[in-house]
Amino acid sequence: MCELMGMSAFRATDVNHSLELLQPRGGEIGPHADGWGVAFYDGRAARIFKEPIPASESRCLSFIASHCYQSRVVVGHIRKANPARFGRATANTHPFCRELGGRSWVFAHNGKLPGIDQARFHPHRFQPIGDTDSERAFCYLMDRVAEHWSGGGAPPPDRLAGWLSEPIAALSELGIFNMLLSDGDNLVVFANERLHALHRDCDEGGQEQHVLLLATQPLTDEPWRPVELGVVHVARDGDFVVPAGASTLTAVRAGG
Amino acid sequence: MCELMGMSAFRATDVNHSLELLQPRGGEIGPHADGWGVAFYDGRAARIFKEPIPASESRCLSFIASHCYQSRVVVGHIRKANPARFGRATANTHPFCRELGGRSWVFAHNGKLPGIDQARFHPHRFQPIGDTDSERAFCYLMDRVAEHWSGGGAPPPDRLAGWLSEPIAALSELGIFNMLLSDGDNLVVFANERLHALHRDCDEGGQEQHVLLLATQPLTDEPWRPVELGVVHVARDGDFVVPAGASTLTAVRAGG
Repeated sequence: MCELMGMSAFRATDVNHSLELLQPRGGEIGPHADGWGVAFYDGRAARIFKEPIPASESRCLSFIASHCYQSRVVVGHIRKANPARFGRATANTHPFCRELGGRSWVFAHNGKLPGIDQARFHPHRFQPIGDTDSERAFCYLMDRVAEHWSGGGAPPPDRLAGWLSEPIAALSELGIFNMLLSDGDNLVVFANERLHALHRDCDEGGQEQHVLLLATQPLTDEPWRPVELGVVHVARDGDFVVPAGASTLTAVRAGG
Repeated sequence: MCELMGMSAFRATDVNHSLELLQPRGGEIGPHADGWGVAFYDGRAARIFKEPIPASESRCLSFIASHCYQSRVVVGHIRKANPARFGRATANTHPFCRELGGRSWVFAHNGKLPGIDQARFHPHRFQPIGDTDSERAFCYLMDRVAEHWSGGGAPPPDRLAGWLSEPIAALSELGIFNMLLSDGDNLVVFANERLHALHRDCDEGGQEQHVLLLATQPLTDEPWRPVELGVVHVARDGDFVVPAGASTLTAVRAGG
């Protein structure tokens, strides 16, 4: 099994601290020793760093974690190859990326999807480069989005959630499916087993800031909450906007 | 104007020395201060590093140049934003990448293509993420490849050259068009103004090795040759295989 890390923010910020906390889980204190990857969005374009080696041994990840890449959306992953036949290779390392409608779309998955080889999930326009069930699932989702959308601004979050609702449910029936998918504005969040969220609402140099962090396991001793299982969430600008009422910001404010 | 760097090799090797030679040209001794990028292929998947900052100031590029990434195909670029309206941004930084047929395709361009906005070059399946004429040209070429090929091994070099011959000629008529395009096996090389090639034929630990290097300007005092202008070349496994008779290996052997 793997570990996911994601961020949606109102203003561009870095995830150095989260990366530092995640890094030792990739091979040192955790078993996720087969690769790591992080996608940082710069507008509509994702810049992706990935290596098919343990995160805990990666000089490149250490470099990135100290480099203060500023971004509004980040998707990260550390990988335990499972099953082992999906070996260590760049092509099998998350996050995966495709262009659709003049944007980078990025995907990372934690879980297993036996049955992804069924005909209904066969790739069409978007084809896997590597061998993983995860990348096949990503291609299946992108084929579905392409049926509805071909560009011109980011899709509205509720429409994106609508297009993805049935295909995500179909994938979820196959096995463990905890995932992050982004177009650089929307961050689609789904879990059927385990994923945690933390909302930070703060002031950065006199400017309002909201940050939503996602991680398989809480990375700090702050009040992380489990993401509701089986529900397609979409985060934007640092908080959940789909489904209506899922806002952690509202919940925190209401609770005092 | 920008500078290109490319490599095709028979066996995976690193390009550390070439990157070290290229780096100061991006802002220090050369004017190409608006970004840099390098794509290393690992099988069918490209791993791309890029930053919209001067190569000469990049800690990331220094890190990569010392990291010994092994690859059989490399495409690199340092960028001078031109015209200036195509600003500094990840989305405007080469090399660009798209998936087609389960492979990463990578493209870098040196030159200017006024007239790329004409209707005949409008993007269809592949759409630009950034603002550059270069990425539009890449999308136009990928749309043409997709008309002929949808996956299953790399395209044969002569067929790939055939599909690209007319679209490359059309782009070449617009302005300066020196470019590198790869699918991880084939490296398509075209210049209508300036590009140099160097072939190294050597023995690496008792194993045969052939390396073909491409660069806008010769990077060393070895016998670099100008690439023949206006001709679509395809390199594979460390030497030109298209057009027939373009092999630098044959030429060196015949001459030596």
